[in-house]
Amino acid sequence: MTRLPAVSRSPEFKPRALYEKFKIEVLATTDDPCDDLSAHQFLRDDETWQGRVIPTFRPDKYLEPAQPNWNADVDRLAEVSGIDTGDYDGYIAAMENRRQYFKDNGAVSADHSHLDARTDVLEVAEAERIYASARKGEASEVEATALRRHLVSEMARMACDDGLVMTLHPGVRRNHHMATFERYGADVGTDIPVQMEFTDALRPMLMRYGTHPNFQLVIFTIDETVYSREIGPLAGFYPSVYVGVPWWFIDAPEAIRRFRAAITETAGFDKSSGFIDDTRAFCSIPARHDMSRRLDAGFVAHLVAEHRLAEDEAMEVMHDLVVTCPRRAFKL
Amino acid sequence: MTRLPAVSRSPEFKPRALYEKFKIEVLATTDDPCDDLSAHQFLRDDETWQGRVIPTFRPDKYLEPAQPNWNADVDRLAEVSGIDTGDYDGYIAAMENRRQYFKDNGAVSADHSHLDARTDVLEVAEAERIYASARKGEASEVEATALRRHLVSEMARMACDDGLVMTLHPGVRRNHHMATFERYGADVGTDIPVQMEFTDALRPMLMRYGTHPNFQLVIFTIDETVYSREIGPLAGFYPSVYVGVPWWFIDAPEAIRRFRAAITETAGFDKSSGFIDDTRAFCSIPARHDMSRRLDAGFVAHLVAEHRLAEDEAMEVMHDLVVTCPRRAFKL
Amino acid sequence: MTRLPAVSRSPEFKPRALYEKFKIEVLATTDDPCDDLSAHQFLRDDETWQGRVIPTFRPDKYLEPAQPNWNADVDRLAEVSGIDTGDYDGYIAAMENRRQYFKDNGAVSADHSHLDARTDVLEVAEAERIYASARKGEASEVEATALRRHLVSEMARMACDDGLVMTLHPGVRRNHHMATFERYGADVGTDIPVQMEFTDALRPMLMRYGTHPNFQLVIFTIDETVYSREIGPLAGFYPSVYVGVPWWFIDAPEAIRRFRAAITETAGFDKSSGFIDDTRAFCSIPARHDMSRRLDAGFVAHLVAEHRLAEDEAMEVMHDLVVTCPRRAFKL
Repeated sequence: MTRLPAVSRSPEFKPRALYEKFKIEVLATTDDPCDDLSAHQFLRDDETWQGRVIPTFRPDKYLEPAQPNWNADVDRLAEVSGIDTGDYDGYIAAMENRRQYFKDNGAVSADHSHLDARTDVLEVAEAERIYASARKGEASEVEATALRRHLVSEMARMACDDGLVMTLHPGVRRNHHMATFERYGADVGTDIPVQMEFTDALRPMLMRYGTHPNFQLVIFTIDETVYSREIGPLAGFYPSVYVGVPWWFIDAPEAIRRFRAAITETAGFDKSSGFIDDTRAFCSIPARHDMSRRLDAGFVAHLVAEHRLAEDEAMEVMHDLVVTCPRRAFKL
Repeated sequence: MTRLPAVSRSPEFKPRALYEKFKIEVLATTDDPCDDLSAHQFLRDDETWQGRVIPTFRPDKYLEPAQPNWNADVDRLAEVSGIDTGDYDGYIAAMENRRQYFKDNGAVSADHSHLDARTDVLEVAEAERIYASARKGEASEVEATALRRHLVSEMARMACDDGLVMTLHPGVRRNHHMATFERYGADVGTDIPVQMEFTDALRPMLMRYGTHPNFQLVIFTIDETVYSREIGPLAGFYPSVYVGVPWWFIDAPEAIRRFRAAITETAGFDKSSGFIDDTRAFCSIPARHDMSRRLDAGFVAHLVAEHRLAEDEAMEVMHDLVVTCPRRAFKL
Repeated sequence: MTRLPAVSRSPEFKPRALYEKFKIEVLATTDDPCDDLSAHQFLRDDETWQGRVIPTFRPDKYLEPAQPNWNADVDRLAEVSGIDTGDYDGYIAAMENRRQYFKDNGAVSADHSHLDARTDVLEVAEAERIYASARKGEASEVEATALRRHLVSEMARMACDDGLVMTLHPGVRRNHHMATFERYGADVGTDIPVQMEFTDALRPMLMRYGTHPNFQLVIFTIDETVYSREIGPLAGFYPSVYVGVPWWFIDAPEAIRRFRAAITETAGFDKSSGFIDDTRAFCSIPARHDMSRRLDAGFVAHLVAEHRLAEDEAMEVMHDLVVTCPRRAFKL
C-alpha cells in the first residue's frame, strides 16, 4: 500500500471537509440487502454531520440462483430478516422486509445489474417449483435464469409498493478473462459489455407496472444503439421510464454528446436522469460533474445557436439537468 | 371534441386551398386492399380539382394469419375481388386482382410493415398447406409467421409484374403496453421499435427479384444501426433497392443528420428516397419538408465547405433530393 | 480489356517507380497457404530492389469444411507441406508448417475472415472426430461450423508460438445475390455486411491466449455498433487486442470520424492499428493514406481546440498514428 501524500492528511482533505467543499447534496452507496447499515445509522445519529449519505438496495446476487453462493446468501437473508426463506413466499417476504429496512434507513432506490434485461414473469406455481429446486441445488441453468428474470419483475412489483426507484444497468459480461478473475477477483477491469435488447425484455414488467404512479425505472446502458431505438421511445411513452445518462465505458465527452443527440429528440431533457457519478474515487466527483455540465451546456448551446431553443429556455434546461431532473428521477 | 378555431373555417384554410398553398405535387393515402377507393374516384372525376391524391396498397393484416380477424378479412377479400379465397391460389389471385385495382386507381406503391423483415420463400405445396390450415384456424404461430414471410416475397413477385413500388418499414413492437391498447385501441403511441436485420432477412426476396428491371424496394427503418452496415451496402449493389429517409421516431434534426452521414458514403444521394412526410397532420407538411430540406442543405453545404463537393454539384444534389429522387424512387 | 493510357507505360509509372514515389515502407499481399511465394522470393533475391513486399497467411478456405473444395484443398495442403493431412493432427502440423514457411518468407501476419467471430474450442477428441467425418464428406453444417470456430482458436494458439499477428475481419455475407456470383464469380460487389458480436465470440480464444506476450490480434469490423461497446473495451483490457481502423464500406470520411470518436475514449490512440489501405488499386494508395491522415489530424485538432490535448501531444499522436502504431500492431 502506498502512503497517502501529506496534503491528504490535512484537515481540509478529510472526507467530510471535501463533502462540504464539493457541495454534494446527496451521496448514495450500494449495499448488500443483508447489510445492517450501521455506518449509515452512525452518520444519521452524528449531530455534527449535516450531509446526506444514503444506502441503495443492491440485491443482484440474491436473484441469481446460478451463482455458487446463492443458497448461503439466501440462508443469511433469512437470518437477517428473521423470515424463513425455505420456500418462495418466505424469500419474497424477506426481500420485502429488507427493502423496507433500507427505506427506513434512507434508501431511495434499488439497483439491478444482470447480463440481460429480461423480466419474463412466471406462474407463481412455477416460480415456487424452481425456487424449491434451486434451494436443493438442483435447478438447471435455464431454470435459474428464468427465476432471476421473474424476480426482477417481482422487484418492480415491490417498488410499486415501497416506492424505491428501480435502476437497471445490465449488459456486461463479467470476468471476461477468467485467469484474471481467479487471480485478482471481481471488478478488476475484465468486464466487457454485450449487446442489449430492452423493448421486448422489459415488456412483461412494463405491461404490469409501467404506468403505476409509484413506479420509476431508470435505464442505463453501455450499448449506445438502444438510445434512439428503444430507450428514447420507452421513456417517451411510459411515465415511469427515465433515461440513465452514459455510464462506465461511455461516460466521456464524445459519448456524452452522442447520448444527448440520440435521446433528446424522442425523450426530451426531462426524462433524463441527470449525471450519475458512479465513481470509486471521491476526489473525482467535482471534475466529473463539471465535465458533464460543460458537455450538456455545449449541447444546449448548439440548440440555441441553431435557433431550436431560446436562450432563456436553455438556461432553464441546464438548471433542470443539474437540479430538477436528478431530484425527480431518484425521488430525492 | 374541441371546436376548430375560426381561422380554420375560413376559405383559405380549406384542404384544397392548403394543398395549393403548400404546393403539393402528390399526396398518397394508405388504404385497405378491400377499399373501393371511391373517395379517390370522386376526386379523379371532380373537374374542379387538379391535384394528385393517390391510394397506396397496404395489405399487412391480410398477410398475418395470426391476427384474430384474418379469416374474416380474407373472406372479405374474396367478396370484393370476386375470387374465391378458399385456397392459396385463390388468395394469390385475389391479391393480384386488388393490386391491379389499386393501380388502375392511381396507386404507385404497396406499403408493408411487419415485426421483422424476413422473406423466406416456402415451397408452393407448403404454402398451400399452411394456408389451408390457417383458413381452418389451425395454423400454429410458427406456421403463421412462415406464411407471412413467404407472402411478403410473393408481394415482391407481384411487384415485378404490376410495377408497384414496394415500401418496407418493419421493426416496431405494436401495442407494447397492452392495457393502453385494450382501452384506447391501436396507434395511440404505445409502439416501440426493435432491433432490425435486413441482410439475411431480405436475401430470399432479393436473390429472386433484386435485379428485376420492374422491381423497386424502398427500405425504411427506425434502427439506425443498419444504415451503414446493411441498407447502404444493399442499395449500393441492388439496382432495385432505395434507402428510405428517417421516419417516425427518428424524423428529427440530429437523426436526419446522422442518416445522411451514415448512408451517403456507401449509397450516394441518388438511391435515397427523398423526404416522406408520413404525417397525419396536414398542416405540418410544409414545416416538415422545410426542416428536411434545410438539414439536407446543411449536410451538402458541409461537403462543399470541406471541398468534397463543388458548389454547382451541391445545387444539383439539392434539386435531386427534392425533385428527382422521390419521383424516381416512387415512380411518380 | 481496355488498353492502358500512354502515361502508364512510361518509366516513372512502373510499379517499382511508383513504390518509391509513394514512399511505401511495407506492402503486404494476402496469399493462399499453399502458395510457394516464389514471387516474393524473386523480389527478395533481386539485388536491384530495396522495397519490402511481404506475404500474408490467409487460410480461410482451409478452415471451412463446409466449402465445396475443402477436401481437395486439404489434400493439396498435404502435398505442399509434405505432411499427411489424413487426420486432425496431420492437418494441424501441416498448418504450422505452412505458417512457418510464410514466416520464413517475410510474413508478419495471418489474416482471417469468416461469417462470425466465434472461437469456441472443442475437446481434442471431438475435433478429431469432426475432422475425420469432414474428410469423408460426412460432416453436417453444424459440425463444419463448430470445427471452423475451433480452428480459428487453434490459429491463435499457433500465433503465440510463431508470433504471426492475427488479423480478423469477419461479418460479411458473401455472394448475397447468387445469380451474380454464378455468372461472375466471387468478389464482384455482392457481399453485404451482417451484425457482429465479439465479446462472447472471442472469449474462448482470449481466455486462453489474450494475455500471451507473443499474441497480437487486430479486430476489423464493418459493424460500427461494436466500436464503443465491444472492441474498445476489449482493447482496453487485453494487451493483445488492437483496434483495426475502418475498412471496406466504412473506409470513408464520415465513418472514419465516427470511428475515432467512438473508440478513442476507451482504447486510446495507441491500440489502433493505423490506416490499412486494403486496396486493389495500387495508384490509390497515396490518396487514401492522405485522406486517412487528414481525417485523423482533424480529429486530433478538435481535441486541441477543446483543450483536451496539448498541441505538442497532438503532434506526437499524429506521428504515432502514421508510424509507431502500425509498426507495433503488425510487428513491422
